[in-house]
Amino acid sequence: MSILALLTFVPLAASGQTPHHHDHIREMYFPDVPGYKTLLCDFHIHTVFSDGSVWPNIRVEEAIRDGLDVIAVTEHLEYLPHKQDIPFPDRNRSSVIATGAARGKDLIILNGSEVTRDMPPGHANAIFVEDANRLLLDDPTDVFLEAKRQGAFVFWNHPNWLSQARDGIVPLTEIHRELIRKNLLHGIEVVNDTTYSDEALQIALDYNLAIIGTSDIHGLVDWQFRVSQGGHRPVTLVFARDKSPEAVKRALFQRRTAVWFKNLLIGRERHLMPLLKASLTVEEALYREGRDVAEVILKNRSDARFELRNKGEFNFHARGDLVTIPPHSSVNLMVKTVERRGSFRLEFEVMNALTAPRTHPTLTLTVRPNR
Amino acid sequence: MSILALLTFVPLAASGQTPHHHDHIREMYFPDVPGYKTLLCDFHIHTVFSDGSVWPNIRVEEAIRDGLDVIAVTEHLEYLPHKQDIPFPDRNRSSVIATGAARGKDLIILNGSEVTRDMPPGHANAIFVEDANRLLLDDPTDVFLEAKRQGAFVFWNHPNWLSQARDGIVPLTEIHRELIRKNLLHGIEVVNDTTYSDEALQIALDYNLAIIGTSDIHGLVDWQFRVSQGGHRPVTLVFARDKSPEAVKRALFQRRTAVWFKNLLIGRERHLMPLLKASLTVEEALYREGRDVAEVILKNRSDARFELRNKGEFNFHARGDLVTIPPHSSVNLMVKTVERRGSFRLEFEVMNALTAPRTHPTLTLTVRPNR
Amino acid sequence: MSILALLTFVPLAASGQTPHHHDHIREMYFPDVPGYKTLLCDFHIHTVFSDGSVWPNIRVEEAIRDGLDVIAVTEHLEYLPHKQDIPFPDRNRSSVIATGAARGKDLIILNGSEVTRDMPPGHANAIFVEDANRLLLDDPTDVFLEAKRQGAFVFWNHPNWLSQARDGIVPLTEIHRELIRKNLLHGIEVVNDTTYSDEALQIALDYNLAIIGTSDIHGLVDWQFRVSQGGHRPVTLVFARDKSPEAVKRALFQRRTAVWFKNLLIGRERHLMPLLKASLTVEEALYREGRDVAEVILKNRSDARFELRNKGEFNFHARGDLVTIPPHSSVNLMVKTVERRGSFRLEFEVMNALTAPRTHPTLTLTVRPNR
Amino acid sequence: MSILALLTFVPLAASGQTPHHHDHIREMYFPDVPGYKTLLCDFHIHTVFSDGSVWPNIRVEEAIRDGLDVIAVTEHLEYLPHKQDIPFPDRNRSSVIATGAARGKDLIILNGSEVTRDMPPGHANAIFVEDANRLLLDDPTDVFLEAKRQGAFVFWNHPNWLSQARDGIVPLTEIHRELIRKNLLHGIEVVNDTTYSDEALQIALDYNLAIIGTSDIHGLVDWQFRVSQGGHRPVTLVFARDKSPEAVKRALFQRRTAVWFKNLLIGRERHLMPLLKASLTVEEALYREGRDVAEVILKNRSDARFELRNKGEFNFHARGDLVTIPPHSSVNLMVKTVERRGSFRLEFEVMNALTAPRTHPTLTLTVRPNR
Repeated sequence: MSILALLTFVPLAASGQTPHHHDHIREMYFPDVPGYKTLLCDFHIHTVFSDGSVWPNIRVEEAIRDGLDVIAVTEHLEYLPHKQDIPFPDRNRSSVIATGAARGKDLIILNGSEVTRDMPPGHANAIFVEDANRLLLDDPTDVFLEAKRQGAFVFWNHPNWLSQARDGIVPLTEIHRELIRKNLLHGIEVVNDTTYSDEALQIALDYNLAIIGTSDIHGLVDWQFRVSQGGHRPVTLVFARDKSPEAVKRALFQRRTAVWFKNLLIGRERHLMPLLKASLTVEEALYREGRDVAEVILKNRSDARFELRNKGEFNFHARGDLVTIPPHSSVNLMVKTVERRGSFRLEFEVMNALTAPRTHPTLTLTVRPNR
Repeated sequence: MSILALLTFVPLAASGQTPHHHDHIREMYFPDVPGYKTLLCDFHIHTVFSDGSVWPNIRVEEAIRDGLDVIAVTEHLEYLPHKQDIPFPDRNRSSVIATGAARGKDLIILNGSEVTRDMPPGHANAIFVEDANRLLLDDPTDVFLEAKRQGAFVFWNHPNWLSQARDGIVPLTEIHRELIRKNLLHGIEVVNDTTYSDEALQIALDYNLAIIGTSDIHGLVDWQFRVSQGGHRPVTLVFARDKSPEAVKRALFQRRTAVWFKNLLIGRERHLMPLLKASLTVEEALYREGRDVAEVILKNRSDARFELRNKGEFNFHARGDLVTIPPHSSVNLMVKTVERRGSFRLEFEVMNALTAPRTHPTLTLTVRPNR
Repeated sequence: MSILALLTFVPLAASGQTPHHHDHIREMYFPDVPGYKTLLCDFHIHTVFSDGSVWPNIRVEEAIRDGLDVIAVTEHLEYLPHKQDIPFPDRNRSSVIATGAARGKDLIILNGSEVTRDMPPGHANAIFVEDANRLLLDDPTDVFLEAKRQGAFVFWNHPNWLSQARDGIVPLTEIHRELIRKNLLHGIEVVNDTTYSDEALQIALDYNLAIIGTSDIHGLVDWQFRVSQGGHRPVTLVFARDKSPEAVKRALFQRRTAVWFKNLLIGRERHLMPLLKASLTVEEALYREGRDVAEVILKNRSDARFELRNKGEFNFHARGDLVTIPPHSSVNLMVKTVERRGSFRLEFEVMNALTAPRTHPTLTLTVRPNR
Repeated sequence: MSILALLTFVPLAASGQTPHHHDHIREMYFPDVPGYKTLLCDFHIHTVFSDGSVWPNIRVEEAIRDGLDVIAVTEHLEYLPHKQDIPFPDRNRSSVIATGAARGKDLIILNGSEVTRDMPPGHANAIFVEDANRLLLDDPTDVFLEAKRQGAFVFWNHPNWLSQARDGIVPLTEIHRELIRKNLLHGIEVVNDTTYSDEALQIALDYNLAIIGTSDIHGLVDWQFRVSQGGHRPVTLVFARDKSPEAVKRALFQRRTAVWFKNLLIGRERHLMPLLKASLTVEEALYREGRDVAEVILKNRSDARFELRNKGEFNFHARGDLVTIPPHSSVNLMVKTVERRGSFRLEFEVMNALTAPRTHPTLTLTVRPNR
């Protein structure tokens, strides 16, 4: 009786039965930054066509519910446990099906593949692939070369994977360095599934790789990331000129990314600062009659719960030096500026943002109270 | 139990999350009745092996999260839209995979098939099938005969389906009557997916068919039935001697079922009354010093929100004649018995239970206040 | 430091610190009816000036948070347990203080008194009192006569009170009948605090008394009625020409009231039906291509959770005969009209409304589906 | 215990509600520390007997609902806006009434008074007062001397009050220093109502004053501190030998306090460290087969949401350096110890704790993984 469900495309807005119910609580959101759109992307996704547990249409629906802009379907090239039931001769097939399922939706589907080898080099995703079938080559280096011929963007997957590095520390080898030198490897997963790697972040910075975070989802996004309890899948924030595959690709090759993982924003300082400034804004500031304390409304327009540590000159009247601003809400900072000032600066270490291992960026906001 | 004990069995991975997290909020529960276990069963389920969107392992995990005892995997025999990718030569395959996924779990997997024909006779599920491949026959009657040879239990699916009955009213024909007369059709879906049919319930009563309710799930249970907002899939409650396939089969052939749909319990009076009595119990009753009003604690041990209409002799001191008892909670009825009584009776029309179209059973409870 | 709190009158809307935060979740709401405003009133309230536990300003703030239009402050005339600390020589004092606290707020404060006698006649509230001090008379009949002289509206309080009627059944006496005959008693509490009385409702109907429900609050409204868990205080809905003391008084003398208690609406049929019709409206109706089932969006614009029992000609496709519509939400009824109709009628017994003991009104809605 | 057992003690009335419902969600909790009980105390509370808005019994009930151990009722000596209605000749009266209301409850009531003067010295609370009437003296110094004669513990109230310090910065004067030198002033409010003062904390440390935090409640605790939204009143945690007035007094004079304000724990390092160690414990630790990453279950047994910054030698596999542990829950730290170790140390800066202005204590935990 599945056809019945599809019949409900008439916008009966008041219905208790809209199947394509947009859930505004779970949809992710970060503001755009000057010059770029902030696109929410998941570049590492499996379906039944390799070792995942759902048909590609579910991946499309999950992405729409999560408010994503772009997903890449990236089946394993070498690992096909469902081969007995799904012979899968055409390695582009799952992305073709996903593309069909996304027709008419505002979601970009990228074709991709996961190169699935022992360490080194381990696993890597090639996205923006023209024909995944042509990646079926014995020598891993040949696969990277073919991916390059196709213009693909390639990143190292879960370099901290305990199955390939029992201490969880990225086993960077000469082979990896060579791939990077030859421009065959362009990014690295600093976040994969439920894990984060300080070492991977350092490698990204040292070798100028794009900072990538992915769900690597095999089962259901809702279960793996506890969406009904407020969780979300990890995503790569891509700062792109517009919402198009070409712009996303260009942004990736130019390393214009950040990662949104649990409550953490991870990225290069030059990419993170515009995002932090777009997310946290001074809405209003004033001195009240009879008081020399500046009331400053600081608004958080993002999904992150900001944890700010006061590094500025002045103390606050109603809190200590740790300021928490929940997602999409505001706080009233009562800044003890000692005397009334035409303008002054607030300075915060952003504890929930990382620009390098254990390194948090400093956000400076200039406040000009109303007279 | 050690906090980490579970972790030696399951890949807790890097998450701090138990992946096989038992969610006690969403697990369904109804109490057993005298002489029988109350088993939660879903006998109509699809996977990628016909027109569903998930691999069978997801169906197993959904069932476990929902606290089900039994599921039947019932792919369409004649409708295989994924055939290009999943040739599916063996029609038992998806139930074999589900059985593997359920190994070590307390969940019974039944092999089944959905006979998928135009009306009449429309669609029907055969469950407890030995070999689904042998059901691939041209004439629908031959399929019913083969199902019988295999000892299968067969029920009419969504007889109210708008695609086969544009007014939603069950098109009962001579062909159906003949299937019933010949003992080839044993049940009828009174509930399918998000729909209920008064006419199907009347047919079940008139022709002595088992009253069946199923999810007919194709996508994800969580989304279709809004589980995170408190919804649940429809299930058939089977009153079985024990939790075994044989006992379930015997119960079905003896029509010992009810349906749990939204907040409605639907069944024959003889099966529903023991369930209602097991669900609603008088926990304690007393008269207090100086008062002639009996305080009666009525406890609801089930998932249903009971909506009771007072039909008894006495009024209540703290509410009108509609008494609502939320799931797994209690109310204090203050019964105005006029004088102190050694025992008295409460009588309620159970509005959230149906024993026939628009017919609600009456529950009588005898109260003996403490002295 | 209480003065600090008052300084925040500047509308810093984004602040996490608005002290007079309007809590739209707890504010009660019922729609107006043709010709009348539906005013939310609580006519039975105590403060420290008799046996209550708060200063009158808290009663004003509670009322504003609850979205009330009118409250009456009604201290006991004869019972003053705080007399040692609050000599209370002027019996109008608490309503004078409440009036001051309500200055600039859209809340009407009425002056009242609770006549506090043994049964008969028991307790009664006089509201719209000019001077409560003049009610301090020995003979209860004299008090009723004086109240009449002042033009007060007088109602019998908690006639089911267990301290004065150990079986909870209203002890109606000749004295009460005489007060009614002489037009000295105009209303009766059918609901008081957490109790409801069928017998009181019957007396209201038999003797043409106004149907009254009050909180009789002594402690905190939030605690007594579990507001943080979704509860609310009982109120009298008064159907008045406008929001003014005069209009409220006229409505009371004309018996234009209903009571909102837990999830129950209680009133005369002639007053309740307009409210039910204003609360439940057909938002949209259509037949879809290929179906002869009418989809009807029924919207509930009130705080009540409607529990409707289908008494009409047609069955529904997606539910049984009990239709639940949560507050401020909609359901899609799929009405099996057998054939397409230009118009048809829905008929419901409104289970959560009472027009007499155990008597529920019938709501008829005419539906005209879009072509 | 019998469900109705309680009912023989309390007037359950007609409600189905337990009026003295213990709300385990709102009850505050911090664990005891070695050698001391951790008592939750609010030493600054007003009622209708000065400028508060409730009778003292409400203060007792609020405290019980909040799980407090001790409250002091501290009416203004010099500011009595309700004097017209409550002549209040006996300044011990409100604490006498509170004591009566607390009879049979596990709550200690202290007698206190708020000395209410212009700055300097501003306002101060004297608690453990024998007779508040004897504090009615013209010269403020005489009041402090009389308080000392009575053995009272005296602390400076809201030294950051904007009405007495328009820049919010504590105006410490020679008069205050002299009061301290003469042992007439023993503590200082670092937290009052919704405000916190870094400068007050520094003065506490510089002059060896007890660190005090109070609600200074005038209206309702639930409203002022948004209890239904998860807020709580500020309290002083007193580390006392036992739960008795004497032990509390001794602890105060020995400065054994901390403050719980919003999500902040404020105190001297010697008092805070035992509390942090009692709150955060290693529940279990192990290396799994095939992995060299230590899984460490860190449990938070307190009401605080811990925000920990990793300062130790090792990185984590599943998070960055900011570790959030919600109240009464656990996290699984996956510590990358590089090789398997018999024991190792974790080191955290506790961001939600303050031992001096902008200074957070470091917590070191030794982990010994199971073999």
